[in-house]
Amino acid sequence: ESRLHVFTCNSNPELAQEIADHIGVPLGDAVVAKFSDGEIHVRLNESVRGSDVYVIQSTSHPVNQHLMELLVMVDALKRASARTINVVIPYYGYARQDRKTRARDPITSKLVANLIETAGADRIITMDLHATQIQGFFDIPVDHLLGVPILGDYFQKKALDDVVVVSPDHGGVIRARKLAERLESPIAIIDKRRPEPNVAEVMNIVGDVKGRTAIIIDDIIDTAGTISLAANALLDYGAKAVYACCTHPVFSGPAIRRIREANIEEMVVTNTIPLGEDKQLEKNRVLSVAPLIGEAIIRVHEELSVSKLFD
Amino acid sequence: ESRLHVFTCNSNPELAQEIADHIGVPLGDAVVAKFSDGEIHVRLNESVRGSDVYVIQSTSHPVNQHLMELLVMVDALKRASARTINVVIPYYGYARQDRKTRARDPITSKLVANLIETAGADRIITMDLHATQIQGFFDIPVDHLLGVPILGDYFQKKALDDVVVVSPDHGGVIRARKLAERLESPIAIIDKRRPEPNVAEVMNIVGDVKGRTAIIIDDIIDTAGTISLAANALLDYGAKAVYACCTHPVFSGPAIRRIREANIEEMVVTNTIPLGEDKQLEKNRVLSVAPLIGEAIIRVHEELSVSKLFD
Ligand SMILES: Nc1ncnc2c1ncn2[C@@H]1O[C@H](COP(=O)(O)O)[C@@H](O)[C@H]1O
Ligand SMILES: Nc1ncnc2c1ncn2[C@@H]1O[C@H](COP(=O)(O)O)[C@@H](O)[C@H]1O
Repeated sequence: ESRLHVFTCNSNPELAQEIADHIGVPLGDAVVAKFSDGEIHVRLNESVRGSDVYVIQSTSHPVNQHLMELLVMVDALKRASARTINVVIPYYGYARQDRKTRARDPITSKLVANLIETAGADRIITMDLHATQIQGFFDIPVDHLLGVPILGDYFQKKALDDVVVVSPDHGGVIRARKLAERLESPIAIIDKRRPEPNVAEVMNIVGDVKGRTAIIIDDIIDTAGTISLAANALLDYGAKAVYACCTHPVFSGPAIRRIREANIEEMVVTNTIPLGEDKQLEKNRVLSVAPLIGEAIIRVHEELSVSKLFD
Repeated sequence: ESRLHVFTCNSNPELAQEIADHIGVPLGDAVVAKFSDGEIHVRLNESVRGSDVYVIQSTSHPVNQHLMELLVMVDALKRASARTINVVIPYYGYARQDRKTRARDPITSKLVANLIETAGADRIITMDLHATQIQGFFDIPVDHLLGVPILGDYFQKKALDDVVVVSPDHGGVIRARKLAERLESPIAIIDKRRPEPNVAEVMNIVGDVKGRTAIIIDDIIDTAGTISLAANALLDYGAKAVYACCTHPVFSGPAIRRIREANIEEMVVTNTIPLGEDKQLEKNRVLSVAPLIGEAIIRVHEELSVSKLFD
């Protein structure tokens, strides 16, 4: 079997340690730091020659720094003769800039895919891409993991009565349906409309929520505006309680204040993005993706080790 | 003649305006801003279809953000059908990571060159690269401008007596010689040695500085440690006054305190990196590179317009 190394940059050191523990290897010895002027420097303190390397790094806030850390790390690994460089991006930033929504827009998700390939990545392992089309932006294999099983297990153990799973928009219906299947529950969809320009959005609900416990599921919760309005709309329509969950807790700007004030029992998220000290709330529950990613790495590594026989 | 557009990102808006004024065009109408989570977004508010576009952006502090702004801007211009995208990088960050100084180092200068090409740049215009080898990291044309004429003009007008131009290290001798030729003066070189590990460096001076006015010239002044020690060494060796100059005032960490306290009459720099409000000092003089870059753009654009005849 070929040698396996797990390195981390600075976005998720704790998750990376958990993943390494799950696999049963120590974290690779490397320094990812800054010079006085803010330029990133990477030092690998161990040989990776001929090894299969897994780098754990979300491109979460501060996104440009975390992206550049990843690119410089991949460059260093490539020049240090790693056999394969497998980039694990639990949260893929810039995913919402995945298409031209108006003339002359950049398509930054595709740019980022190109940058990562240019640096020298051989494979991507990521989770809940905002748009599954982003897999096609890469010309290298992408393993796309889903958060629904982890969130679903949590709610299954909780055994809430009369659940309805709610998608906060039409784009999230497939995800909501997957969670609903696991919980053997119906779904509902929030239908946002702006009656006229510069008039507040109205939230209609498609589906029956009366007397039910609503679980809103999204891929990303960023400023938490939609979620907190959706919770109120669900209660107005007669839901008896509202839970919210997502894979990627971006939680920027007013998010924490809004979640604190929102009529939500619990906010269930994963650790693809760590919640800093300023983002702790009583109602937050954090589930770990380490076992999922750890298993994915073990499986990829088995394949790579087999292919090594034919090298 | 084909249409010419000048855009700027956020590193040097004032320099960009000066360059546009020099050329005699308005600055292109674009927004380079951030979403709530820190992701950069670029909006081009005018058509660039078929135009030759010049983007002004130094990859100075915060370097990763400024680099990403540039990459997203180039991506937007490419997808908006610009005819050519000419990237003007007055200060090219990451230039000091241009080679492996030890095993398993990344070569981040080359990585950055690859990233800029991948985004879609057709040509680079830059100034005083820390190593001229960096031109070879690009597979597109690089126009490499020098700050020495600008700094030389300033000191010529000053008409100091008995000048000696000083290179702060052996790597800077060619630059010092170019300035010395303009000022018709001799040169001296500072020869740093560390007699034993963990013993402070000793600065010897090769060349005669006694009774002379020393002008130290460097490409980058970052933390200003070398410059302030060099000034003291020159005075110890009998120089009657010390001036310092450089093209790129990075001025990070302790730089401003050190320059304030250093035995230096004037610190002459250019505006490839703007000096923020916290970096103003009585002894700082800032010379503009706008005429130099403006002329370079005019000349490149003449070439591109001629080539258009054969398109
Ligand atoms: N980081 C971001 N924060 C907020 N909005 C974004 C971000 N990135 C892209 N967008 C916008 O989100 C919209 C796309 O989101 P969606 O319709 O959910 O795919 C577009 O209008 C984008 O301009
Ligand atoms: N941004 C930076 N700040 C300080 N030192 C750096 C930076 N980038 C690279 N270096 C180091 O500077 C040295 C190269 O500088 P030089 O010998 O002047 O070309 C190498 O040891 C690099 O590791």
